[in-house]
Amino acid sequence: MKYFITGGAGFIGSHIVDRILKEGGQVVVYDNLSTGQINFLESAKTNKNFELIVGDLLDKDLLNTSISGCDMVFHMAANADIRHGLENPYNDIEQNTIVTFNLLEAMRKSNIKRIVFASSAAALGEPEQFPTPESCAVPIQTSLYGASKMACEGLISSYCEGYGFEGYAFRFVSLLGPRYPHGHVFDFVKKLRHDSSKLEVLGDGKQRKSYMHIDDCLDAIFLVANEKRTALQSKRNYQVYHLGNPEYIKVSDSAMIIIDQMDLTAKIEYTGGRQGWIGDNPFVFLDVTKIQSEGWSPKNNIKDSICETVDWLNNNGWIMENRQ
Amino acid sequence: MKYFITGGAGFIGSHIVDRILKEGGQVVVYDNLSTGQINFLESAKTNKNFELIVGDLLDKDLLNTSISGCDMVFHMAANADIRHGLENPYNDIEQNTIVTFNLLEAMRKSNIKRIVFASSAAALGEPEQFPTPESCAVPIQTSLYGASKMACEGLISSYCEGYGFEGYAFRFVSLLGPRYPHGHVFDFVKKLRHDSSKLEVLGDGKQRKSYMHIDDCLDAIFLVANEKRTALQSKRNYQVYHLGNPEYIKVSDSAMIIIDQMDLTAKIEYTGGRQGWIGDNPFVFLDVTKIQSEGWSPKNNIKDSICETVDWLNNNGWIMENRQ
Repeated sequence: MKYFITGGAGFIGSHIVDRILKEGGQVVVYDNLSTGQINFLESAKTNKNFELIVGDLLDKDLLNTSISGCDMVFHMAANADIRHGLENPYNDIEQNTIVTFNLLEAMRKSNIKRIVFASSAAALGEPEQFPTPESCAVPIQTSLYGASKMACEGLISSYCEGYGFEGYAFRFVSLLGPRYPHGHVFDFVKKLRHDSSKLEVLGDGKQRKSYMHIDDCLDAIFLVANEKRTALQSKRNYQVYHLGNPEYIKVSDSAMIIIDQMDLTAKIEYTGGRQGWIGDNPFVFLDVTKIQSEGWSPKNNIKDSICETVDWLNNNGWIMENRQ
Repeated sequence: MKYFITGGAGFIGSHIVDRILKEGGQVVVYDNLSTGQINFLESAKTNKNFELIVGDLLDKDLLNTSISGCDMVFHMAANADIRHGLENPYNDIEQNTIVTFNLLEAMRKSNIKRIVFASSAAALGEPEQFPTPESCAVPIQTSLYGASKMACEGLISSYCEGYGFEGYAFRFVSLLGPRYPHGHVFDFVKKLRHDSSKLEVLGDGKQRKSYMHIDDCLDAIFLVANEKRTALQSKRNYQVYHLGNPEYIKVSDSAMIIIDQMDLTAKIEYTGGRQGWIGDNPFVFLDVTKIQSEGWSPKNNIKDSICETVDWLNNNGWIMENRQ
């Protein structure tokens, strides 16, 4: 099997690359390196089954050439910056919605029909049901990022219905673990490395969030996407899964874990408000019984995942220099 | 008040134009006349409060100039051809999703914050709950058209959350009445005018659909959008309403009503299958208790609306010559 991995130089994408190569598969990474890190592919680059194409999903010609001959697509490329969406609202529609359309068309031209898509809990806006199942009420979108992820889901499921594609969309909570490149742990560690005496936290700290370790996320994705899913053949050829930990943590508690893990005694200062920024969902807690019923269970709890991420960031200070 | 009406030369748009002009409002119609009919604006054109701009929503410069000075937007322009979406999948993303983004950006530049949006029951895919309420389960999209309408809803609600817009999205069932330009009544009447001895019906005829008269649709829209909604000010500034009749009809029954209304004895031939085409939802029946609870009720039942539409089409044969 030859896999085409968009955003393959990113946090999630590069882990997918490593796992496929480890299992003997072939990989074509397609990444414009706008946020991807060539460092994440250090080990992959030494593998003869690996190919990197530095390209943009807006470049349809290069995309069509590059994808040809692949068997399956992992679509991980995205503008993942939820917080600054309102500063340039075209980013989400272009980097998420339009490029997903381009990718689906490239797949159709090359007769590639299987796609795994990295959606997000953010596509659910502020749900009213907790833990939130896949069948929760139609969301009212609260961020351009979330709206674009749901738009991508709609495109993919339409291609499944209309062109016989097979699609798997995973709505993730925020992920943690090695190569973690942005998010609250990143921000907190970066701030504390700059000033170890205090930590500014956006919002009132009462936001409740679920997090998941990247390894657990990959276990779930490959369980669903790799299996010979004969039992499912009578079902709709588009499936959505919620992925997260069956627990959540308050941001204030997370801040204390991070400070402890760095052996500091910083004073926490809250900016106030129920959200860290406009579009921030103050309570993220997904119902993961669907994926659990297929035999998956997470191996890492939230606290240990935060600590591991803090250590990884402190051992890889370069990423906090490179990234905002 | 000065209203900017995209697709103002279309079926729904032109009725909105007439109603606003009748109530003394000012109207700017923005329409590329790709499917809009200049005939529909015959009466409007004689009104001093009316202005027609033949323009495309992809032409951002003209859009920005044209919208300036308006107070509120009715966004009715769309690619409304669900059935042929798979022949050119870019149509829906461009004519629905991207132009809606362009429109929202033009509004933002001109500091216009109120928008009414024509969404669709098709944005719900094939729901499992009937009648289907606004809070039904997150849909699995089954048509590019439906997916694009949901993408537009997501953009609009994100602008409400992020930029303080006030948005009203109406998910319509199929509408009937004067100026009806496409859909099953159109197709059936056109076929029967060509050959009155038989009528080919797509699917097995058992599809169940709700329809609504255009006048009832406008009553609902103006009830919500025109009211000084002080009571709602504490609620979220984005609202979705399902609009339809609290009844439905089988396609086979509708076919017989149409044949009777034309005084024919045509033999009905079914092409078979639960759907008329890929993406056709075989059961459309919306829960309209939300809009009913605000004081609306439909004045026209489905049967009378079909008959009125048949008569209008037969008195306006030109539209079946102009349109596919």
